[in-house]
Amino acid sequence: MHPLKQLMNPKSLAFWGASNNPMKMGSMQLANVLGTGYEGEVYPIHPKETSVMGIPAFGSIADVGKPVDLAQLTLPTEVVPGILDECGRAGIRRAIVISGGFKEVAGDRGKQLEREIKEIALKYDMRFLGPNCVGIFNSLCSLNTTTIHSPPGGGKIAFASQSGAYTAMINPYLRAQGISICQTLSVGNEADIDLTDCVEYLKDEPEVSAIGLYIETVRRPREFARVLRETVKEKPVVAIYVGGTEAGSRSSLSHTGALSGPDEVYDGLFRQAGVIRAEDIDQMFDMLRALSSQPLPAGGRMAVITNSGGPGSSLAYHIEKAGLSVPSFSDGLAARLDAVTGPLAFVRNPIDLTFETDMAIFTKLLELVFESGEVDGAFLYGIFGGPDFMVNIVKRFPELEQLKGGLGAKHGQFLAKLAGVPRAFGKPLVVMSFLGPDSASVGPLIDDGVPVFPSAVRAAGVMRALLEYRHIRDPA
Amino acid sequence: MHPLKQLMNPKSLAFWGASNNPMKMGSMQLANVLGTGYEGEVYPIHPKETSVMGIPAFGSIADVGKPVDLAQLTLPTEVVPGILDECGRAGIRRAIVISGGFKEVAGDRGKQLEREIKEIALKYDMRFLGPNCVGIFNSLCSLNTTTIHSPPGGGKIAFASQSGAYTAMINPYLRAQGISICQTLSVGNEADIDLTDCVEYLKDEPEVSAIGLYIETVRRPREFARVLRETVKEKPVVAIYVGGTEAGSRSSLSHTGALSGPDEVYDGLFRQAGVIRAEDIDQMFDMLRALSSQPLPAGGRMAVITNSGGPGSSLAYHIEKAGLSVPSFSDGLAARLDAVTGPLAFVRNPIDLTFETDMAIFTKLLELVFESGEVDGAFLYGIFGGPDFMVNIVKRFPELEQLKGGLGAKHGQFLAKLAGVPRAFGKPLVVMSFLGPDSASVGPLIDDGVPVFPSAVRAAGVMRALLEYRHIRDPA
Repeated sequence: MHPLKQLMNPKSLAFWGASNNPMKMGSMQLANVLGTGYEGEVYPIHPKETSVMGIPAFGSIADVGKPVDLAQLTLPTEVVPGILDECGRAGIRRAIVISGGFKEVAGDRGKQLEREIKEIALKYDMRFLGPNCVGIFNSLCSLNTTTIHSPPGGGKIAFASQSGAYTAMINPYLRAQGISICQTLSVGNEADIDLTDCVEYLKDEPEVSAIGLYIETVRRPREFARVLRETVKEKPVVAIYVGGTEAGSRSSLSHTGALSGPDEVYDGLFRQAGVIRAEDIDQMFDMLRALSSQPLPAGGRMAVITNSGGPGSSLAYHIEKAGLSVPSFSDGLAARLDAVTGPLAFVRNPIDLTFETDMAIFTKLLELVFESGEVDGAFLYGIFGGPDFMVNIVKRFPELEQLKGGLGAKHGQFLAKLAGVPRAFGKPLVVMSFLGPDSASVGPLIDDGVPVFPSAVRAAGVMRALLEYRHIRDPA
Repeated sequence: MHPLKQLMNPKSLAFWGASNNPMKMGSMQLANVLGTGYEGEVYPIHPKETSVMGIPAFGSIADVGKPVDLAQLTLPTEVVPGILDECGRAGIRRAIVISGGFKEVAGDRGKQLEREIKEIALKYDMRFLGPNCVGIFNSLCSLNTTTIHSPPGGGKIAFASQSGAYTAMINPYLRAQGISICQTLSVGNEADIDLTDCVEYLKDEPEVSAIGLYIETVRRPREFARVLRETVKEKPVVAIYVGGTEAGSRSSLSHTGALSGPDEVYDGLFRQAGVIRAEDIDQMFDMLRALSSQPLPAGGRMAVITNSGGPGSSLAYHIEKAGLSVPSFSDGLAARLDAVTGPLAFVRNPIDLTFETDMAIFTKLLELVFESGEVDGAFLYGIFGGPDFMVNIVKRFPELEQLKGGLGAKHGQFLAKLAGVPRAFGKPLVVMSFLGPDSASVGPLIDDGVPVFPSAVRAAGVMRALLEYRHIRDPA
């Protein structure tokens, strides 16, 4: 069993650093452990308090008197080695060391303390995350050991990161985007467990279907490439790397105590390993969302379906800029599309309905273009759900309130049917819309795995990543 | 007086196409006119109804018997010329023609009808927007003639667009981003008023401090360049252009009946005109937000202030990628920064506090780096507002509820002070945060004109645009 399996799915957790002072970092973390739905045993360890946040506390780990799967240490740097040794003696074999002040700070003392905790771990055959990390989240057992509440759980995306901020602080952004997460791991200084270990673990997690990595340095490049090459046969990996400029590497030197290499070196490593490189964290999650939910395109031929010229033109433009194509449809397909659309429509690709409120036409058009074999994927703009747009008209026609419910139900059925089309044909769909996850117009579509973006650049970039992964997984 | 002045600020509006059937486009638009706070006279014109949506309707414009500033026509194509002629006879000199089916559709009939309405307008010295447009929004007189409710008014950004979708459908996106709009104009087929006219008008609107353009074609390139060159001496213009690929121009040909030129031609035109080109609509609004609210940098030297390594590294990396620099600070400045920060901080640039919860330090550091003269602008990551993060801890310590209020008030004061620093020093600040406009942590900062982005790429791109406009406005 991979060492991270137990660390990420502990049946019991001993916690150092929480107290009855709510303004301490450890207290915030324990409050999140207790408030996220984790059902394992939780043992706060505190030298003085007999209970912490209303649950029994223990003077030391020896006092717990039961086997414990995982220790989390949110403690002053100097006391970490001693406590870690106590953990080892008590039989704990997995730990998360939140504390900073190790290798990442100037001077010899931090480096010496980091060597000490590595030696202690070796002595007890203990594996640990950190130091200088922010904790973990596992949606599968509702365990959140970070300071940030309400991670958006339930998804199929895993994320391992050398930046703590990106694994926890990013939650509000993910939630606003309608992105759900399965597991996140903050690796900190990687004194023991590193990103490569995380990928090796996540590769065999059946609930995880796409992996994101935030990388400032790769400590074992050969092993990284080997593990990643194996992983990407089964699931896609997207990484961002930000060590390649002078200031970037000066910054990350201060951050994790590791020196980064130039961009080109990492581009080569990623290519060799089959890793898709994203520009930044937002683009990475755009890609992961699509990769974890949409079929892969067999090639780069794309249909654009729109009921409005501007977004249609923008999509066509950015699809071609991204190296994909928007082929003109055959006469046969154009005739079949023409039979469905109104007289003002243009059907050669982009399909521009110019104005259309009957959403069912979208589903029909999508089926026709997928069925034709003339495209490998499709983009759609123009989904409106009726009720969202009736704010002022309802004030004038109160009788519409009733109609709104019916429109909403009909729209919900349309969305469910639309989301089924890419699955049925094994071809990807990416939607462009200025409406978000909280809107009735597109929210249910997002929940059903269709990526929705307010920008043609983002939509096209994501389709490009789907094709890129297809080429990685199934090389010609 | 510019012809658009009256069109965008009418004292009275005659409206064709609204009825007591709420599912008609015209009815949706009139409901928005009536529901957005417009205080001018509104005259629905309807052949049969004596009242529409509870206000008196008129059988024809002749029946109104008072001067009317503006007509909006949401009517079947064939009847538009006749009604426009009636408007002319009744003395109306400004019109918005929503109706489609003109030059943008295949066949000769649409082109002929478009020629007819141009001739009618000429005959009466009438100026009009459209046909095939979606209407206007003017926050200054609360006039919204589009089908989309609740435009996010109150800002300093104006937007003129050849795509109707981008001027109206985009409202929910802008609202979610915390972006406010002053005026939007949908120009449709530009049979009369075109984008160049819009810019000429917006140039002299004192409330507008940045202009966005969505362009598929420029009909009068020489005039465009002349007007834009004059405009950008006073306020920045950002444009997106999506006609440059094969499918892109095929698409926009169907859309507005105009053929687009290659990207390079437009790049040249924009350069000559002093227009900043954005990649897509989301990036354009990122830039407009900053350009309408932040001082311009005198050069490209940037400070990065962070309390977390990952975002700090990402910012440094993308700032350099964007052609700006993150210079290492002098010993003198480093010493002054060192006196303010904790022992674990790195102060050479990026300034990495590693962990810091006292937000006031950010203000102090920002003042020190601006005061030093060693940078032209700054980026900041790490703003947290306390209360946002206390969800679970408050469940365990109910007495914290009271504290939350105090933390919130203190945080509000910090944000107000922080937002004042760029104004005081005349140097721009861009903030990176995963929290949005609806959060207590950064929402008030956004409202106060500091751009906040969840991505280093977006943050750096915006600073780049500020510098680009500085070079355009004040050429060396």
